[in-house]
Amino acid sequence: MASKKASRRGFLKAGAAAAAVGAIKTTGAEAALPQAQPPKSLKDLVAYGERSRFVTSVRVPVVDRPSPDQFGLIFHILTPLQEQVGNITPSSLHFVGTHRGAIVPDLDPKEHKFMIHGMVDRPLEFTVDELKRFPSVSRIHFIECLGNHSKPEYKTVQETHGLTSCSEWTGVPMSLLLKECGVQKGAAWIVSEGLEEVKGGGSIRLAKAMDDMMVAYGQNGEPLRPQQGFPLRLIVPGFEGVYNTKWLRRVKVVDRYYMTYNDYGHIQKEEEIAAMTVQWGPKSVITFPSGGQQLPGPGVYQITGLAWSGGGKVRKVEISADGGQTWKEAEIPGEVHSKAHTRFGLNWKWDGQECTLMSRCTDELGQLQPMRSQLAQHFHEPPDYYKTHGVQGTDNMIQPWRVASDGSVHNALV
Amino acid sequence: MASKKASRRGFLKAGAAAAAVGAIKTTGAEAALPQAQPPKSLKDLVAYGERSRFVTSVRVPVVDRPSPDQFGLIFHILTPLQEQVGNITPSSLHFVGTHRGAIVPDLDPKEHKFMIHGMVDRPLEFTVDELKRFPSVSRIHFIECLGNHSKPEYKTVQETHGLTSCSEWTGVPMSLLLKECGVQKGAAWIVSEGLEEVKGGGSIRLAKAMDDMMVAYGQNGEPLRPQQGFPLRLIVPGFEGVYNTKWLRRVKVVDRYYMTYNDYGHIQKEEEIAAMTVQWGPKSVITFPSGGQQLPGPGVYQITGLAWSGGGKVRKVEISADGGQTWKEAEIPGEVHSKAHTRFGLNWKWDGQECTLMSRCTDELGQLQPMRSQLAQHFHEPPDYYKTHGVQGTDNMIQPWRVASDGSVHNALV
Repeated sequence: MASKKASRRGFLKAGAAAAAVGAIKTTGAEAALPQAQPPKSLKDLVAYGERSRFVTSVRVPVVDRPSPDQFGLIFHILTPLQEQVGNITPSSLHFVGTHRGAIVPDLDPKEHKFMIHGMVDRPLEFTVDELKRFPSVSRIHFIECLGNHSKPEYKTVQETHGLTSCSEWTGVPMSLLLKECGVQKGAAWIVSEGLEEVKGGGSIRLAKAMDDMMVAYGQNGEPLRPQQGFPLRLIVPGFEGVYNTKWLRRVKVVDRYYMTYNDYGHIQKEEEIAAMTVQWGPKSVITFPSGGQQLPGPGVYQITGLAWSGGGKVRKVEISADGGQTWKEAEIPGEVHSKAHTRFGLNWKWDGQECTLMSRCTDELGQLQPMRSQLAQHFHEPPDYYKTHGVQGTDNMIQPWRVASDGSVHNALV
Repeated sequence: MASKKASRRGFLKAGAAAAAVGAIKTTGAEAALPQAQPPKSLKDLVAYGERSRFVTSVRVPVVDRPSPDQFGLIFHILTPLQEQVGNITPSSLHFVGTHRGAIVPDLDPKEHKFMIHGMVDRPLEFTVDELKRFPSVSRIHFIECLGNHSKPEYKTVQETHGLTSCSEWTGVPMSLLLKECGVQKGAAWIVSEGLEEVKGGGSIRLAKAMDDMMVAYGQNGEPLRPQQGFPLRLIVPGFEGVYNTKWLRRVKVVDRYYMTYNDYGHIQKEEEIAAMTVQWGPKSVITFPSGGQQLPGPGVYQITGLAWSGGGKVRKVEISADGGQTWKEAEIPGEVHSKAHTRFGLNWKWDGQECTLMSRCTDELGQLQPMRSQLAQHFHEPPDYYKTHGVQGTDNMIQPWRVASDGSVHNALV
């Protein structure tokens, strides 16, 4: 009886949804608007489950920043950090940074190949199945896009910080594959290339490749998602997202730095900016309470958020409720992984007065997350530069949230 | 151009799939057959991504074991362990054990409430939003159903071991909520109840509740999936799956053990069986090569699989390629979490001769995973008993896989 009812409901909904899909004339720009999913049949739900109809978190595209290559196409898709719990980002909600928006290569893993060549004794080409026969490693790491920087006009944490996500990645250590090929004397860099028109490549020092990089085929227990580079992606823990080449096709071992299309920001006239780092510094953000949220009234709340660093493990997170004058250490209740999102929390009694909340991270190297003004000094630039241009390097500045006396929460970046 | 093409293809497929859904007269038994999903529109893919069309892993129902309560309904749905990588189980592929198959309560989290009462000073009722205001904890734990036992007639690792899965769970420590209520003197047990017709409850010692139990609302970064108890589930790390009450409604603090509907197996005439443990012992299984898989020929392979224990962290995994006569320690390349799936691997050169592969786990308590014959002795029962009845307690026996000289792999349990 129960099953029959559920089945009929499932059918009606699926039929209506299919009609709606037919009505969409999809272009890149129209693809920007999220809509509800058609529900699955009971049969499908046995095979592959889905979330509750009451759970409606969605990613949103960055509308004011289209792909520089294909006008009208989405460049960045933001993950809803304000609605996430724990440390892992659901694969369906992982941020996307790509020149092609949601239109990604439709690759058959049986035909895709990955090549290592250049300054090696034995250039080798691997199928995905061949890579899966190598010893694998699974590690939890964040990936954060260089474009992840807060601006005063952004309202929510999805807008200010939604270009970072964290997954359990599974793949083959890059060092193992390079040893298999035999790296020649004099080699000092690698250049990677993916199947995007812009190649998605980057120059990375060989030392990093031999350290903790991997050629990943798995994400959160299943194959990589297409938007994350299915079937193969380079994982470069702690580095700017763009180095984590999707739809990975080849790695060339070379003797020097090669400029690639993806050197966003690195290619600058001003030496101080061109010389910026590629490894993320210590960073954190409060996800509750954060911009656009509403506290029902004075009382005890659990401030919570995420901290991470490209330099290793998070050692400490501190929270200020007075705009950075005094700091109190937050709790990190779970296990801490290197170069991974780390959930923190702190009980906080709100008295109903306007105040400004901030979090700051110290990583295992002892690096401290900077205030906005300190970050500007670090780059030898006046704060005004960043106000008008945005930060051009990795932006790990402290994010302030103002809690108004009516309980509404606002971006307090100026 | 590219986007238009993708859209048209999406529409045609969605239409065909909807027609197929209409043709299904769903009953519990017919719901057993997985089918392909209609693809999403480009618009939807911005909001919430999906896997590649080349990735087709699906769960399958246990067809020979229908729900004892509702004839024809599915009781157990098996996760495809043979196709998973890393340690996390994708939420859509998490095993399901429930009396209602895929038909699960459709609960509105705004209306759902959870109550703690019984031997407490202050009985309290919590909404989901209220629970989210408490300090949260996120931990990676396996959940394994008591029904997860291998039988000689099962062919694949999905059939022999597909009732265990591993997620990052987020929720409120049970100890915190119990302290909030004030546990009274003389209290020694708790009884939990969910929203299934059979209540899904269990009696658990108060000491466990005060140790590492949690009331979870999050799974792998997003709200619990409906099939996993949305919006609230009890997490009882290391204990039989049935204790992890789904659609959690209440916990009663009591002074003694209460029998509940879910005491499968525990209610036995034979004292030795009635007294069996509820905490999983050290367990492991090789997922590659495993039953139903095919090695292309002699050569070097990476044996890989998962190990776990209800007693804490996995300390060591050993592999035998000669049916248990000699053992070699496997590598554990990632971080090891307590009461969590732990991926292991070992390079193995197959010479083309028939052989039997086994894995065994030692946990941090020093407990060693038993051979089938040892497990039988432990319960003071002749092996024949288990042959005909299946193991009635937690089954953590070593799983042997026979590699035939033609490279085919078979269940070698006898």
